[in-house]
Amino acid sequence: MTVTLDELNRMSPADFTAVVGDTFELAPWVAEAAAARRPFVTVTALHEAMMGALRAASRERQLEFLRGHPDLAGKAARAGAMTDESGREQASAGLDSLGEEEFARFHRLNEAYRAKFGFPFMICVRRHTRDSILAQFERRLGNAAATEFASAVQEVFYITRLRIAAKVAGEGMPLVSGRLSTHVLDTHAGRPAVGVAIELFEFAGERAHLVAAAVTNADGRTDKPLIADRPLPIGRYELRFAVGNHFRSRGIDSGNPPFLDIVPLRFSVAEPEGHYHVPLLCTPWSYATYRGS
Amino acid sequence: MTVTLDELNRMSPADFTAVVGDTFELAPWVAEAAAARRPFVTVTALHEAMMGALRAASRERQLEFLRGHPDLAGKAARAGAMTDESGREQASAGLDSLGEEEFARFHRLNEAYRAKFGFPFMICVRRHTRDSILAQFERRLGNAAATEFASAVQEVFYITRLRIAAKVAGEGMPLVSGRLSTHVLDTHAGRPAVGVAIELFEFAGERAHLVAAAVTNADGRTDKPLIADRPLPIGRYELRFAVGNHFRSRGIDSGNPPFLDIVPLRFSVAEPEGHYHVPLLCTPWSYATYRGS
Amino acid sequence: MTVTLDELNRMSPADFTAVVGDTFELAPWVAEAAAARRPFVTVTALHEAMMGALRAASRERQLEFLRGHPDLAGKAARAGAMTDESGREQASAGLDSLGEEEFARFHRLNEAYRAKFGFPFMICVRRHTRDSILAQFERRLGNAAATEFASAVQEVFYITRLRIAAKVAGEGMPLVSGRLSTHVLDTHAGRPAVGVAIELFEFAGERAHLVAAAVTNADGRTDKPLIADRPLPIGRYELRFAVGNHFRSRGIDSGNPPFLDIVPLRFSVAEPEGHYHVPLLCTPWSYATYRGS
Amino acid sequence: MTVTLDELNRMSPADFTAVVGDTFELAPWVAEAAAARRPFVTVTALHEAMMGALRAASRERQLEFLRGHPDLAGKAARAGAMTDESGREQASAGLDSLGEEEFARFHRLNEAYRAKFGFPFMICVRRHTRDSILAQFERRLGNAAATEFASAVQEVFYITRLRIAAKVAGEGMPLVSGRLSTHVLDTHAGRPAVGVAIELFEFAGERAHLVAAAVTNADGRTDKPLIADRPLPIGRYELRFAVGNHFRSRGIDSGNPPFLDIVPLRFSVAEPEGHYHVPLLCTPWSYATYRGS
Repeated sequence: MTVTLDELNRMSPADFTAVVGDTFELAPWVAEAAAARRPFVTVTALHEAMMGALRAASRERQLEFLRGHPDLAGKAARAGAMTDESGREQASAGLDSLGEEEFARFHRLNEAYRAKFGFPFMICVRRHTRDSILAQFERRLGNAAATEFASAVQEVFYITRLRIAAKVAGEGMPLVSGRLSTHVLDTHAGRPAVGVAIELFEFAGERAHLVAAAVTNADGRTDKPLIADRPLPIGRYELRFAVGNHFRSRGIDSGNPPFLDIVPLRFSVAEPEGHYHVPLLCTPWSYATYRGS
Repeated sequence: MTVTLDELNRMSPADFTAVVGDTFELAPWVAEAAAARRPFVTVTALHEAMMGALRAASRERQLEFLRGHPDLAGKAARAGAMTDESGREQASAGLDSLGEEEFARFHRLNEAYRAKFGFPFMICVRRHTRDSILAQFERRLGNAAATEFASAVQEVFYITRLRIAAKVAGEGMPLVSGRLSTHVLDTHAGRPAVGVAIELFEFAGERAHLVAAAVTNADGRTDKPLIADRPLPIGRYELRFAVGNHFRSRGIDSGNPPFLDIVPLRFSVAEPEGHYHVPLLCTPWSYATYRGS
Repeated sequence: MTVTLDELNRMSPADFTAVVGDTFELAPWVAEAAAARRPFVTVTALHEAMMGALRAASRERQLEFLRGHPDLAGKAARAGAMTDESGREQASAGLDSLGEEEFARFHRLNEAYRAKFGFPFMICVRRHTRDSILAQFERRLGNAAATEFASAVQEVFYITRLRIAAKVAGEGMPLVSGRLSTHVLDTHAGRPAVGVAIELFEFAGERAHLVAAAVTNADGRTDKPLIADRPLPIGRYELRFAVGNHFRSRGIDSGNPPFLDIVPLRFSVAEPEGHYHVPLLCTPWSYATYRGS
Repeated sequence: MTVTLDELNRMSPADFTAVVGDTFELAPWVAEAAAARRPFVTVTALHEAMMGALRAASRERQLEFLRGHPDLAGKAARAGAMTDESGREQASAGLDSLGEEEFARFHRLNEAYRAKFGFPFMICVRRHTRDSILAQFERRLGNAAATEFASAVQEVFYITRLRIAAKVAGEGMPLVSGRLSTHVLDTHAGRPAVGVAIELFEFAGERAHLVAAAVTNADGRTDKPLIADRPLPIGRYELRFAVGNHFRSRGIDSGNPPFLDIVPLRFSVAEPEGHYHVPLLCTPWSYATYRGS
């Protein structure tokens, strides 16, 4: 599935375009232009060359490119009439399974956006939760045309950077992944808290849905990060730690019901490629958290 | 409405019984017995004398007394066929407005309890949330008869202590109230956090309903405790602090969305007459809480 | 010893000057001018009227007034040849008991200051530790003449405000006192830590000398603030809490020697009339502090 | 200098004894006995075999072995008349450079100990600070003879385990090293605190002497642990963090002098082979620490 940067550097222009030509939606001309700039020393340089080709194109061609994208959560999404990559991307934020009301809301936003700007709303869905997509949609609808055109190109940058990183292996990979990790310290015992069940929820409006679950190991950490190897979707989250069970298993009486049982830590992610370490320091009667490193 | 201990000490036995005779549900003989033990130096001593009369009565009379109580969330509650005090008490935990499913659950518990013990389930409703009542009901259903009889009498103690405290004023009042308070310190600024909106929710199963709301004053406290002058119902609670707005109003950028917005502190109350001080120490990137004093 | 504002308002001008004439060192004319502005509604207004008289005086008279003050830690201090008030003030920061080296240092500073500005260095000693006095002395020696003249008058304001507050009782007392308090919470037990020995040290260079000691009461607080009813001298402090003994008395094993024994909290005071609440939240394995309220 | 376990397993008995015979002070017979138990799968097994030989020896021979050791901080130490290993070990806790008073104190303890038990005081000096050695000396002087004999053998275990670990390389090394690390988080900025100067002091009585210094790197950690690759001497320590400079460099005003300048964290080590992670979470107005992992 993936190709190496070396292989890409040595391919014929036609083969090069065949392999990475779908990175920019329905716009193989971007890859064709980049083919002439080879060899690339890093995967990041390959991506920048493709973005350079897009930026160097005429405004007309750029608009045509933007117009080649499907609506977000639009009829194409429902009908499955999108490219595979667009389909997978929209599914990542649950845009393929909206209720009628949300579908209608997206429909109204799409209509208003196209009417104002003349192309569909571009957003790198994998970097956002559904809430964040809606917030961005409404905010950007208020932009001036030039500002919004730049925003759309910036989102193309994020979308295609992820596509290139998934398709090409080699030196100088672009940074496309964030990391969400935690750590539970039992400051009553002065030791890591072992065997604590942890759940990670993502908010969509007032509803929270489970996105990861783990149990702390001997060092009070989870064996792998709660989220890794992909962008952290911008949005609101809640970590829930079953500390009541932990202290009960240590034989500590902190009342009935215990003062602390499920401890929720609610926080937001604003940097999809950042590292969010959100630990819990806990006794049966107190706790603390912070954005750590 | 209230009477002083001095007045009670000086009344004729008949007047005394007329005034405090309904403290023990449908059992004016308890007050009659206590009337002969006057004068009382403290309101607590008055209550203890009444409890003493109950404890000194024959088992038959005690059972008759217990049987004089209405079912919890039973048909009498629905039909309004209870004494006024019982009615107000059951309403305090929302037992007068159960859904069909919960009503049926209480009905089954009442039937099973009466079948096993021969008297209705006694619990001082004002000291419990609905969740806690159900938990106690199911736990006590498993008790041996002698244990449960003692539990029932202990609940009568709590119920009548509250009734006496509401009716009689004087020296040596029994301790019937708890207190829930909070405090918000902005450890980023080294000052109390002023103007922070706080909401207190009580859990019933997975649903949380608002029971108090306040805004912090110049000292980072609420002008009065979130709960005071009554027992703190045993159960699960969540305090929610709008710290995102606070730091935004101070002009601090902590990302978009901000790392912390609504901070929830989830804890349980196990001592209805205790003082729970649950403060928040907060920066835009960290927070801590503890059971304070 | 103290006089009421009412009495001052009703006195003859001569008596008024006899009573408060020494507030401004060797300058009864300040009181004489203020006497004509009576009656005063607040003690603060009385003090402001006196400051107004000083500020309205000719530069020559002001300089004469400043020159009437003794050197700080100078020969007069050693020889006891100062007014009583100046003597007590200089003693408060230990300036009456300097070693030879420090005495020589003050002597050099005094000489340099007088040579540059033509009057002795003024500082409200009660608002400073020895370290802070030396730091101010060296800093202000670098001031321009006009800036330093204003600084000297500001210090006269502080000195005389304290003198008036000590001498006159009445409405609208000026704020001349700060407060240093603490609180120890045992977050391992979820309760105030009772019986914890606390010592407060003030730093002079690298040496720390004890200025207060107390033991926590049932609420984890000290029965009275560690410092109150006087300015908090600007400077560096260390609170030391004997938490090792506390946890040992609770039967908790945290190693031999215990991980935490004497916990030092080192902080500085910059606002002599402020409230510094410096609590300790502690388990055998962790602690936290903050400037609270 | 070091030899591999493989080499030791293949040597002649005489060579084996020549190489590891001085592990047990002046007692090559221990190595001779262990030579016959080869091959060893782990270095730990080699050490255990040597301890087994000591434990299997007659009480007379064991006593002779113990008596072959020099006094702690005794005349031999002063005169340099010890084996090299003993000399280096005693120097590690500063026992080669005591003042007259301390030398006299050790002399009295040595005399009393020999008089009571008939052999010199054994302690694995590398696992202790001077304070801890004195505390153990005085405590163990009160032991019953059998208890103290066992204590002495246990110390021989620690001493020789360190010697073997320093001399032999191979599989299954015994755990002889602890680790002391730290981490500074600026919870005001939500980032690691970079460039913070840290000093580690070890206490000897009331005096503290510097044992390590470092500056935090981009992750708020020190490039290497403050102590590693050796036992952590049991005793009292203080970490000092120059957080005042850190916040000043960020342009934050927290008063003059700043509320927090040098933050001291005072703690004790009780497990020489343990990991002590002692981080600092800090704002200009608050800080927290805990034994982490």
